[in-house]
Amino acid sequence: MINKLIDKIKKTNAPIVVGLDPMLNYIPEQVQKKAFDAYGETLEGAAEAIWQFNKAIVDATYDLIPAVKPQIAMYEQFGIPGLEAFKKTVDYCHEKDLVVIGDVKRGDIGSTSAAYAVGHLGRVQVGSKSYVPFDEDFATVNPYLGSDGVNPFIKVCKEEKKGLFILVKTSNPSSGEFQDQLIDGRPLYELVGQQVAKWGEEHMGDSYSYIGAVVGATYPEMGKILRRIMPKTFILVPGYGAQGGKGADLAHFFNEDGLGAIINSSRGIIAAYKQEAYQQFGAENFADASRQAVMDMQKDIAGALA
Amino acid sequence: MINKLIDKIKKTNAPIVVGLDPMLNYIPEQVQKKAFDAYGETLEGAAEAIWQFNKAIVDATYDLIPAVKPQIAMYEQFGIPGLEAFKKTVDYCHEKDLVVIGDVKRGDIGSTSAAYAVGHLGRVQVGSKSYVPFDEDFATVNPYLGSDGVNPFIKVCKEEKKGLFILVKTSNPSSGEFQDQLIDGRPLYELVGQQVAKWGEEHMGDSYSYIGAVVGATYPEMGKILRRIMPKTFILVPGYGAQGGKGADLAHFFNEDGLGAIINSSRGIIAAYKQEAYQQFGAENFADASRQAVMDMQKDIAGALA
Repeated sequence: MINKLIDKIKKTNAPIVVGLDPMLNYIPEQVQKKAFDAYGETLEGAAEAIWQFNKAIVDATYDLIPAVKPQIAMYEQFGIPGLEAFKKTVDYCHEKDLVVIGDVKRGDIGSTSAAYAVGHLGRVQVGSKSYVPFDEDFATVNPYLGSDGVNPFIKVCKEEKKGLFILVKTSNPSSGEFQDQLIDGRPLYELVGQQVAKWGEEHMGDSYSYIGAVVGATYPEMGKILRRIMPKTFILVPGYGAQGGKGADLAHFFNEDGLGAIINSSRGIIAAYKQEAYQQFGAENFADASRQAVMDMQKDIAGALA
Repeated sequence: MINKLIDKIKKTNAPIVVGLDPMLNYIPEQVQKKAFDAYGETLEGAAEAIWQFNKAIVDATYDLIPAVKPQIAMYEQFGIPGLEAFKKTVDYCHEKDLVVIGDVKRGDIGSTSAAYAVGHLGRVQVGSKSYVPFDEDFATVNPYLGSDGVNPFIKVCKEEKKGLFILVKTSNPSSGEFQDQLIDGRPLYELVGQQVAKWGEEHMGDSYSYIGAVVGATYPEMGKILRRIMPKTFILVPGYGAQGGKGADLAHFFNEDGLGAIINSSRGIIAAYKQEAYQQFGAENFADASRQAVMDMQKDIAGALA
C-alpha cells in the first residue's frame, strides 16, 4: 500500500491528504437540513449529513489527491450511526481509488492491539468465514505501550499489504509535556522515532517502509531532525493550515527525492467555504471551495519544495 | 461516579472489575452455535454470540461485583455489529446497576479528544436535541499527547459526573520500552503519574479523585511507588491472573484505608470454565464457573489485604 500511496502522490504531484473530520458545524445548513428532514435531528440524521458532506467533497477532489484521512472520533461521537457513516466513507473512497488512512490512534496490550489491527486493517474470522470490518489502508497507532502493542498491527500490515503511521511528535501545543522530555540528553520523540525507523527497516515497500510516522507540521525543526533519524520512513504531517503549520515549514519533512512526507489538511479544505479566501463560492458550492483549496495547497507545497 | 464506585466496592467487599473482553474462542460451542444458527457465520452472528455470552456472565456475577470493564477492541474487531454488542452490553450492565469502565484507550489532539469524550462519556448535540452515544461511566485514556489531549475528557467528566483512568504504567511486557525511560533520573511513568495526581487534585470526589490511573498488576514494585506519588488517585490494575499478576502483589496498590485500587480480571473470570480449577462446571455451566472464579478472586484479594 505504501507503493500505491507513493505512485498516487507522483501522479497527482500532490503529497496531500484530505482530513475528512466533519464537525457538524462545518456542514452547510442545506446539507444538514436535508438530512434532518429525512431522519430527524437524530444520530442517524447527523450521520446522513456527514456522509452527504463527505461524498460531495470526495467527488470534488478525488482526481487531485492521493489519499484521505477520516478521523474516526468525529464519527464515533455519533455512536453506531456515526460509525456507519465512517464505514460508508471508507468504502466510497475506495471506489474512487483513494488511499484511506484511518486516523484511529489505537494501541493497547498485544492481544487487544491484535483485535484493533484485524478490525481496521485486516480480516476477522467468524467460524469458517472471514470478514473485512472497516478496511482502511493505513491506520495511525499510539506507541505508548511499546513493541508488543505495535507488533500485532505490523503483522496484519505484512499479511494484508497495508501500513501504519505511528505517533512520534504530535501537532498539538502540549505534545511536548511527555514527548519532549530528555532521556540521556535526547527527547523521547527521537527515541520513538528511532524505534519507528527500526520497525520500518524490516518492513519495506519499494523505496519506503510501510511503517510510517506522524510528526506535526507545527514543529518543523523537530521534523528536520526526525527526517534524518528515519530516512526510509514516510511521515504523515498533520497541523498544516488551521493548526498553524505553513508551506515553507514543510520542506524539512521531505527527502531529496521530493518524497517521504504527506501533508494533511482537514478544516482548511473541508470547511474552506467558511474562509474569507473562498467566500465567493458560497455555502451552496462548498465542495467547489474545497477543490480550490486543494489546488491552492498543492501549489503552496510545490512552491515550498521547489 | 467515583463515589458510586467506592460505595459499591465497600458493599460488595470486592475491589474487582470483570473484564468483558470476549474473544470468540472463549465463548462455549453451544452459545456460538445458537447465534450462528440464527444469524449465520456473520459479523452479526459473532456479535450475537458475544452479547449472549456477556449477558450470562453479568447475570451470574452482578451481585458480587461493583463494575465491569468491556474492552472495546474485542467488539470493534467485528465492525458495526460488534459495536452494537458493545453498546448493548453497556446498557445491560447499567440495568444491573454496575459501574461500566469503557476500556477504550482513546487520546488525541484537543478537538478530537473532545469528540471521543462526548461519544463515550457525554452527550452529543444534533441540532436542538442531544444524545448519549455510548454512555460508559469511566473511560481509559492514553496520555502520550499531554494535557490538551486529556483536558477535554476531564471537562466532560466534570459536567457529567463521570471519570477517567489514564494509562501510567501498563501491564504488558514491553511497557518499559518508553514508559521506563529515565528523565532526570526518574522513569517517565512517574512523571505521568505525577501529572495524573495533579489533574486529579482539582477533580475530587468525596475521598478520591475521579481522574484515576492504570498501573499493571505485573509491576508491583512500581505500583508501590506510584501509590505514594498519587495518594488520592484510584488505580485500575489490569494484569491479574492470566497476565501473571498475583494476589499477594496487589496489596501495594491499595492505601491504608483498604481502598484506592480496583483489580481487573478478564480471561481468568469470563473463560474460567476452560481452566482446570473450574472444569467440573463444564462448558454448559460457564457462567457458574465465572461466578465461582469471582468468589475465589475476592477471597484472594481480601487475603492479600488482611
